[in-house]
Amino acid sequence: MNVPVSFRVSALFCVLFCPRMAKLQAVFSLRHMLVMSLALNVGLIMRMFPDSDETLANDAVEAGVNSKRETHVVQKSTTLSGVNSTSADRPGRRERVINLDHGDPTMYEGYWRQMGEKTTITIPGWQSLSYISDMTNVCWFLVPEFAEEVVRLHQVVGNAVTEDRHIVVGTGSSQLILAALYALSSPDAAEPISVVSAAPYYSSYPSMVDYQKSRLYKWAGDAESFNKDGPYIELVTSPNNPDGLLRRSVVNRSQGLLIHDLAYYWPQYTPITSPSDHDLSLFTVSKSTGHAGMRIGWALVKDRKVAEKMTRFIELNTIGVSKDSQLRAAKVLKAVSDGCQQGESSFFKHSYKLMAGRWKLLRATVEYGGLFSLPQFCPSFCTFFGQETEPQPAFLWLRCEGEIEDCEGFLRKHKIISRGGKHFGGSPKLTRISMLDTQETFLDFIERLSNIQQIK
Amino acid sequence: MNVPVSFRVSALFCVLFCPRMAKLQAVFSLRHMLVMSLALNVGLIMRMFPDSDETLANDAVEAGVNSKRETHVVQKSTTLSGVNSTSADRPGRRERVINLDHGDPTMYEGYWRQMGEKTTITIPGWQSLSYISDMTNVCWFLVPEFAEEVVRLHQVVGNAVTEDRHIVVGTGSSQLILAALYALSSPDAAEPISVVSAAPYYSSYPSMVDYQKSRLYKWAGDAESFNKDGPYIELVTSPNNPDGLLRRSVVNRSQGLLIHDLAYYWPQYTPITSPSDHDLSLFTVSKSTGHAGMRIGWALVKDRKVAEKMTRFIELNTIGVSKDSQLRAAKVLKAVSDGCQQGESSFFKHSYKLMAGRWKLLRATVEYGGLFSLPQFCPSFCTFFGQETEPQPAFLWLRCEGEIEDCEGFLRKHKIISRGGKHFGGSPKLTRISMLDTQETFLDFIERLSNIQQIK
Repeated sequence: MNVPVSFRVSALFCVLFCPRMAKLQAVFSLRHMLVMSLALNVGLIMRMFPDSDETLANDAVEAGVNSKRETHVVQKSTTLSGVNSTSADRPGRRERVINLDHGDPTMYEGYWRQMGEKTTITIPGWQSLSYISDMTNVCWFLVPEFAEEVVRLHQVVGNAVTEDRHIVVGTGSSQLILAALYALSSPDAAEPISVVSAAPYYSSYPSMVDYQKSRLYKWAGDAESFNKDGPYIELVTSPNNPDGLLRRSVVNRSQGLLIHDLAYYWPQYTPITSPSDHDLSLFTVSKSTGHAGMRIGWALVKDRKVAEKMTRFIELNTIGVSKDSQLRAAKVLKAVSDGCQQGESSFFKHSYKLMAGRWKLLRATVEYGGLFSLPQFCPSFCTFFGQETEPQPAFLWLRCEGEIEDCEGFLRKHKIISRGGKHFGGSPKLTRISMLDTQETFLDFIERLSNIQQIK
Repeated sequence: MNVPVSFRVSALFCVLFCPRMAKLQAVFSLRHMLVMSLALNVGLIMRMFPDSDETLANDAVEAGVNSKRETHVVQKSTTLSGVNSTSADRPGRRERVINLDHGDPTMYEGYWRQMGEKTTITIPGWQSLSYISDMTNVCWFLVPEFAEEVVRLHQVVGNAVTEDRHIVVGTGSSQLILAALYALSSPDAAEPISVVSAAPYYSSYPSMVDYQKSRLYKWAGDAESFNKDGPYIELVTSPNNPDGLLRRSVVNRSQGLLIHDLAYYWPQYTPITSPSDHDLSLFTVSKSTGHAGMRIGWALVKDRKVAEKMTRFIELNTIGVSKDSQLRAAKVLKAVSDGCQQGESSFFKHSYKLMAGRWKLLRATVEYGGLFSLPQFCPSFCTFFGQETEPQPAFLWLRCEGEIEDCEGFLRKHKIISRGGKHFGGSPKLTRISMLDTQETFLDFIERLSNIQQIK
């Protein structure tokens, strides 16, 4: 089921899908709703983590979630003036190009710096010379320590079933998508198998599928309008990139083969409602822990033959995957699992707060202005946090309201680089903006948005 | 020019291509030649590095190059008995499967262990989060430190021109071969461009080119018999895998695009006669320093547009290349360059000695028996070592003599796993055997070969 998006300039809670809120909207004015929702939200977030330690409190200040800072930020936002005094001191910030085109997860750097030596890895020069990691494994280049930590993390977070699954490691999940297409297609088929995904879909899918001009598979566009008989592959991204919504397959025919891209199914982005349990799921450290430079992704694969074919693809493509990065990823995943099991200051809690702070600031900035609108989400019970949380996606899927037809172009005039809706098979009235950049860039972005609305 | 191979069971020097030796052959008997050549060779190698330090002397013992050990080995070899007392002590060694199918460069582990902390790298958890390395570079994911060390190493070794070249980093050179095929082919062409290579060619080329069933390019077999008009891509591997010979393009037509795979153009494998100077050359740490587990290769590319298209390929394929491994490779390459510039115990000198020891032992074992024959090579002046050296390839391209038509199958019966000639577009009378495995495996292999000849 592909849930449609509401972009109405309304309160924080999703009016369309939370019926109890729909009545309220009729009673209160826009401004009332805004003030009330902001207040509610501050309280909600502060209550959620009542016993934050000092480190987390510092993070909160940084993210604009601390109550004192919060008041300050909200006041500033509601007057549409500057947001951040540090930001205001930097020369040239008003003229700088703010590039939020890529989902570069530099936001997480602060946390990993705070962790100090915990995830530092030392690799001696004589280590990892061989191509081979474990010839007894279907995926012979999979480093066992990494595989162990993948299983453990999924168990700790509760976001994926790992029993009776083969793990295939990839150079990022991009390589695994291609490996999965190769594994699910047949070299003897009369024609290439159709590959579809419901719009708005990840903007790289069409190029990734078609750049090699393969006779094994071909891009066939929006899954919603796909009506061809015969076998097909559907890419199901959940939460979805760019809009953050949860997804299920939409074609739903007997000959469908599904690839679940679950890069964002982590507690900082969305409530973990149950362990995912699919034939073929993909994950990546780029978005789970923020280590995009490692280029490490993994697939959980039910069918041994599919795992073997994926392994064969990677063998022919890159003869395996960097052992250095697998070892480093193992250390990072271990630290994340340890943190979750040992105490309060877990990576996901910290990241959830960061994202919550950003989304709140964003809503406070945008929803008052009327020039833009944001997607609305319903909270759900998160089994990881043990309470209700709200989706706070890694990307903002922003809609320009009124007469602005090209939202990407409009922002570009104001030196904000985003990725326009048409790249995602969607409307140019929408554009995708990364929420994962550095704090400095994010605050500059908020200030720029604020200024744009002031100008208008 | 593709130099043909002589497989005659003769002395160590190539009779066919060194005319001064041809006369000698007529004068001396086979046994005379063998004894003389072995004696000559021991002297030659010992003279080549008269001032070896203690560490290198230890290596030499390990490799069977030390004069005392050498005498022992030659005696043992000539009596076709066992080779190594340490090896003889290991239980089950006679029954073990000796797998030399892959060119896994574990031989180098000893050297890197001896180097201790010099190439140890420490990566803190907060490092390399971003996908991006240098947006001003054509290859935006190329880590600048790695690029610097690549240029420096080529200058130190003198094996490649780096001026006016773009460096594109890849997940091993395999990815770069695919990136180059993508970059050199045209999406608008009426039919896929033909990809050829002179047989015997690297056994993975046909699968690598065809596994995606691309409409951009297709494998067209042995370059020697390629006679189709129009554009084509020729893969020129020099020194060649599997036979170690130097190669030039063989098709030599106006519409040819060349990819030079120079993975083995390093001083331990072949004399460096001049800096390579091609449009598109590929190198890899897997074979230069032995760090195959890093999965790091690089291309030197003349044409900016080709470098851009290769970068685009890697972007769509894996969104860049592991930064951890690039950083680690930078450190290893730096240590190699430092060692070359600072003193006697350079990596290449050490590796040359190891390879020399192995090849000598191999020749002493094989050439006496008459069951197998080896390729013969001419020495050339190596600008890096400043003296004449002989090729000593990373693979043994072994020929079974007499009635044995399937050399791979024959060895398999004796529990030696190799890769048969037909995989390389060659004769099944030949088979490829890695010369880069651990010392233990190599010595077991030598002993097994020796025993096989005894049985016969």
